[in-house]
Amino acid sequence: MINGIEFAGIASGIKASGLDLGLVFFKEDMHVLSLYTRNKVKAAHILYDRRINSGPVRALLVNSGCANACTGKDGIADLHKIAGGLSSSLNIDAEKILFASTGVIGKRLPVETITRALPALTKSLKGTHLETFAQSIMTTDTFPKIVSERFHGKKEYTMVGVAKGAGMINPLFATMLSFVFTDYPVSPERVKKAFSAAGKETFERVSVDGECSTNDTVMLFTKTGAEDPAALPAFEEKLLAVMKELSLMIVRDGEGATRVIHITVNGAKKKEFAEKIARRIAISPLTKTAFFGCDPNWGRVIAAAGDADVPVQPSKVEIIMQGQVLAKDGIEVPFDEQAIKKLMNKKEIELVINLNDGKASYDIYTTDLTYDYIKINASYRS
Amino acid sequence: MINGIEFAGIASGIKASGLDLGLVFFKEDMHVLSLYTRNKVKAAHILYDRRINSGPVRALLVNSGCANACTGKDGIADLHKIAGGLSSSLNIDAEKILFASTGVIGKRLPVETITRALPALTKSLKGTHLETFAQSIMTTDTFPKIVSERFHGKKEYTMVGVAKGAGMINPLFATMLSFVFTDYPVSPERVKKAFSAAGKETFERVSVDGECSTNDTVMLFTKTGAEDPAALPAFEEKLLAVMKELSLMIVRDGEGATRVIHITVNGAKKKEFAEKIARRIAISPLTKTAFFGCDPNWGRVIAAAGDADVPVQPSKVEIIMQGQVLAKDGIEVPFDEQAIKKLMNKKEIELVINLNDGKASYDIYTTDLTYDYIKINASYRS
Repeated sequence: MINGIEFAGIASGIKASGLDLGLVFFKEDMHVLSLYTRNKVKAAHILYDRRINSGPVRALLVNSGCANACTGKDGIADLHKIAGGLSSSLNIDAEKILFASTGVIGKRLPVETITRALPALTKSLKGTHLETFAQSIMTTDTFPKIVSERFHGKKEYTMVGVAKGAGMINPLFATMLSFVFTDYPVSPERVKKAFSAAGKETFERVSVDGECSTNDTVMLFTKTGAEDPAALPAFEEKLLAVMKELSLMIVRDGEGATRVIHITVNGAKKKEFAEKIARRIAISPLTKTAFFGCDPNWGRVIAAAGDADVPVQPSKVEIIMQGQVLAKDGIEVPFDEQAIKKLMNKKEIELVINLNDGKASYDIYTTDLTYDYIKINASYRS
Repeated sequence: MINGIEFAGIASGIKASGLDLGLVFFKEDMHVLSLYTRNKVKAAHILYDRRINSGPVRALLVNSGCANACTGKDGIADLHKIAGGLSSSLNIDAEKILFASTGVIGKRLPVETITRALPALTKSLKGTHLETFAQSIMTTDTFPKIVSERFHGKKEYTMVGVAKGAGMINPLFATMLSFVFTDYPVSPERVKKAFSAAGKETFERVSVDGECSTNDTVMLFTKTGAEDPAALPAFEEKLLAVMKELSLMIVRDGEGATRVIHITVNGAKKKEFAEKIARRIAISPLTKTAFFGCDPNWGRVIAAAGDADVPVQPSKVEIIMQGQVLAKDGIEVPFDEQAIKKLMNKKEIELVINLNDGKASYDIYTTDLTYDYIKINASYRS
């Protein structure tokens, strides 16, 4: 529950079954800030929404089951049509409606189906329907992703974050939609930097499969009206916490994933080097399959590090798995394989690579690569 | 069979079972040229062999089951010890022995085991034992990889190529060892450029899993002595053909692979752009799982292209699968899904991406991503 915001989710028929259309209604004008995919191929909703820039906005319509990406001018025209229908249903300005889509690329939205569903959707709007909304935007997710926080200034404020994963997830963005709502009144200008920085620290630090979606979107909605600067530090802190938790939920629910691997690269000459190595390990299928098999195969880790296209001195590298040193000075330290295997048979794995070459660090979260990832993705369209 | 070259392969005990130690013996001095992995972490055999440069050489000892990578100075000292033993067994200069290793990273070679096996190994040397040698260097390969060609100058010459895959295979090198032998007498200087160019056109254009090994090695052995320049054009042509065929064998035998996908990117402004897009698609797990499922999911292809970090104009992109246009001007062309699925249920798939933005092209071969890749790699060490 959050002041002045109502949610809804229904099964409109975009998917063969299940919730597939979600709506957020703001009783008053809200500000909005957005982060979009770095993919050169961008979904229609991004091309449409970015005109609107910082708002004001009154509604957000989100569908799953169809990405509305690679649909050309028609895909954008479809959104204009739907905006027309929704503006009548909600009695708001069509220019104050934002969209987000997730699902199969290359298919047009079923405009008739969606338009027909709008009256029922708006009728079911309720402050308490947050979870239904969160469910309606899911694709291969196995659980809805919601985080709530409270913070104080002159009065108490609420922040609610919602996200969906679960494949095409990679640093610098994911097939991921994420929306953060707050009744804290603050102008986009004042929080733009913190929001963008939080994006870099959270959603840009998770990878499921190294894929970058056409649809990735993170939106932050804040209240318009008289500001309350006393709450700004608390707001920024909670924003980072909410985005961090949402991004971790996406990794935990990564397609087919059985474990989350937290990769930390320390002792790099430059942060950029640490980041490239961490990202390279995070997308290494050999490393990720080894984690699935609880195999302390540190050789695959160092091989991925050596392939990151940045300087690495193999003879200085130390590799630590779940607190146990597997390699030092670039060579193996005798370890009890069965004991390490047992330590690795956990949902959360800590992998540390120490380059011993400087002081810069970077960390990232990824998943293991499993049979279920193949199963989910070998026939996602059908 | 090739003039003046003998082969052997035995089960020495490096692996729990199966052939694991191969030997090539040259009755006279041979020249050698090598291409090595671009990985910053390089196996001991590469650090050892590269001193020897262009030869002359008399023997090549190859083991599977242990990569002898990340073994530090000890790993190189081990090779010196083994070279001592082999030089006695073969009665040749230890400085004329080359090594190559493939297998698990981070483990030392069992020097005693190998040294003990050398007399039996040298005793079994025979001109006809090429296939046994090819089998002894296999790891997860399902078939030995041998290609033979003949060509003429003043007389007839033979060229024999041997290779192993089958995982950690990526452009700019693979966990792959490949050796090409010929009784054609030619100096390394004269064929260096053609060899290096052939490497770029063949082994650098295959990818199984986007991983770059610490051990990748391609060696070309040519005869010393009076040259026969008339055969040079034929030699270069056959060299390219042999290396091409070996590299394709590696892809066909990619870990868990059921299909080979030939990706061609046309109409790029620069060759570099075409190459980056082709390579990005070739390592895309979502695209590769879709191929496993015969899913004409062109959206994943264009999403990967858009993530290649080079300019792409989505509205110009055309995607052609098995000769059928799936998308044009960046949007879907109506197609019969069942018919395309049937066309995709083949061992060889042709995927063409036309950027319609210039004249440059690049092509690459990759595999699908399957349950068996996970199965093979989740427990390779044990």
